[in-house]
Amino acid sequence: MDEKLIIKKYLKPLANSKDSLQLRDDVANINVADEKYIVTNQDSLVMGTHFFESDDPKYIAKKSLRVNLSDLISKGVTPYGYFLSLAMDDTIDENWIKLFSQGLAEDQKKYNITLLGGDTVSAPHGLFISINMLSRTNDSIIKRSGACYGDNIYVTGTIGNSAIGLHLLKNKNDYLGLGQLDIQKLIRKYHLPDPRLKIIHLIKKFASSSMDTTDGLINDLLVLAGSSGRKFIIKKNLIPYSVSAKKFLNNYGDFDIALYGGDDYEVIFTSPMKFEDKLNEYAKKIKLKITKIGNVGSTSKNPGLFDEKYKEFKASYYTFKHFK
Amino acid sequence: MDEKLIIKKYLKPLANSKDSLQLRDDVANINVADEKYIVTNQDSLVMGTHFFESDDPKYIAKKSLRVNLSDLISKGVTPYGYFLSLAMDDTIDENWIKLFSQGLAEDQKKYNITLLGGDTVSAPHGLFISINMLSRTNDSIIKRSGACYGDNIYVTGTIGNSAIGLHLLKNKNDYLGLGQLDIQKLIRKYHLPDPRLKIIHLIKKFASSSMDTTDGLINDLLVLAGSSGRKFIIKKNLIPYSVSAKKFLNNYGDFDIALYGGDDYEVIFTSPMKFEDKLNEYAKKIKLKITKIGNVGSTSKNPGLFDEKYKEFKASYYTFKHFK
Repeated sequence: MDEKLIIKKYLKPLANSKDSLQLRDDVANINVADEKYIVTNQDSLVMGTHFFESDDPKYIAKKSLRVNLSDLISKGVTPYGYFLSLAMDDTIDENWIKLFSQGLAEDQKKYNITLLGGDTVSAPHGLFISINMLSRTNDSIIKRSGACYGDNIYVTGTIGNSAIGLHLLKNKNDYLGLGQLDIQKLIRKYHLPDPRLKIIHLIKKFASSSMDTTDGLINDLLVLAGSSGRKFIIKKNLIPYSVSAKKFLNNYGDFDIALYGGDDYEVIFTSPMKFEDKLNEYAKKIKLKITKIGNVGSTSKNPGLFDEKYKEFKASYYTFKHFK
Repeated sequence: MDEKLIIKKYLKPLANSKDSLQLRDDVANINVADEKYIVTNQDSLVMGTHFFESDDPKYIAKKSLRVNLSDLISKGVTPYGYFLSLAMDDTIDENWIKLFSQGLAEDQKKYNITLLGGDTVSAPHGLFISINMLSRTNDSIIKRSGACYGDNIYVTGTIGNSAIGLHLLKNKNDYLGLGQLDIQKLIRKYHLPDPRLKIIHLIKKFASSSMDTTDGLINDLLVLAGSSGRKFIIKKNLIPYSVSAKKFLNNYGDFDIALYGGDDYEVIFTSPMKFEDKLNEYAKKIKLKITKIGNVGSTSKNPGLFDEKYKEFKASYYTFKHFK
């Protein structure tokens, strides 16, 4: 396929900010005269690793944007625009590009972001997508390292849906009593993370540390505890699951798939106890489900994660890799 | 290979700016409080398309940075830092990563840039590198669209070396009287573009339009003429070739390989006639070879590129693809 055609017909209409120079100049020129910071991150998705060849190109487009959006909003900043690099072999045809750019367009509207630049190149094998997403802001970000003694530990939404969705895709007969609606819901969570812009202000106002969950709740809590150099104590029975996930997990008999399975794209954060009432009030007002799952303990040379009986959780790289 | 090992052992030492948050937070937090603009671009390189599996990892690292550096400096802005995405299959081992990051480190020093963030992921096939490079600046960039009637047209350095280098790599017996030193020089130009930071101030001060040459001199001049909506008239016999390239081209009997072959990463720019003396003086002072190859003509609904006999050059997509 002709790179110029792709750019002119499909990508240029997505570059609706002056800063993109209409994709004409190889560079974007981003006005930051009124800002203090650019907050930016870059994540890549590869066919065969992060999505399947048969996946809907619209979902692939949205997932590529959302894994990056999730990184920024979990830091309490509002996304502004993105760069897109596409490397494609010749199995990618114009219809694929059309659906892919429709997916981008829908999410640009939903998240109020714009395409700023990038490139499309040919590859001998496969499909590779790299996105650099940025935010212009006057506020500092909430870092991973800010958790203090006594802070409450929260998670948004429910966890494990995406990992169970992937399990269902891979094991088509292992439904364990789930109905069609449950199955669809869980698989959808795997295909399409749902980062919520409305969390930005909550994080900015109430969080002492935060990050999004991508590698499994336990692995990510361990990272947050490690960044703050503290012991985190969580109550296992407070961890929130969706109704569909609960049905599956109870029959499956092993909750590790939810605790260590990746791709939830929820936010874990810590917040001072004194904010508890105001935080709950605010979350209720914006209709965002947050759940307090534990508390931050003392500083330690060996930070870690413990349950209510002080049994230590260990990182499970194997489980993480397995469900990726 | 373990992603955490790669980041900790090889990439973290490259993230020597506070803005990178030591690669600990998934995002970079770039201070722009004293700037008006962020100028940024993103280019990707794929094994089998832009480099060979057997190429020196150090060269691959440097080429990946330099194709991006070239975009920025041709716009008259000073590069600041970059995001790196790596997707790798399991043929990439730790020694490869070691050499690759040594290449990055050497060029970080040479160009005074820093690693800001990015990611490493596994891929089922091949190697994909995506780099987003950015510059913080208070000046506007020199666009492609600023050429005016009568402006002189310039090119830096010499052209065709890289395309001939690739030809020599592909046709090991087609040396056409070149000596070993010539061959090495030309092949090196293919492996390693040489964008020169010292051009930044020259472009900022004297250019009305500019871009770097990546798709072959003629194709790129056509783009510049098109962006400015003008006819460009160039004198073929003024186009500068290196001594090694000239030897090859005279024996080869066809100059199209140099005129349409890509990967030169020189800068083409236009500059008002009134600046001619001062521009030459400045170029001499900074020891940068620039060559006037023609003049900008009238505006036109059909912009184009013509030789001194008013014979039109056409874009040669075939030749470009062929030499890529």
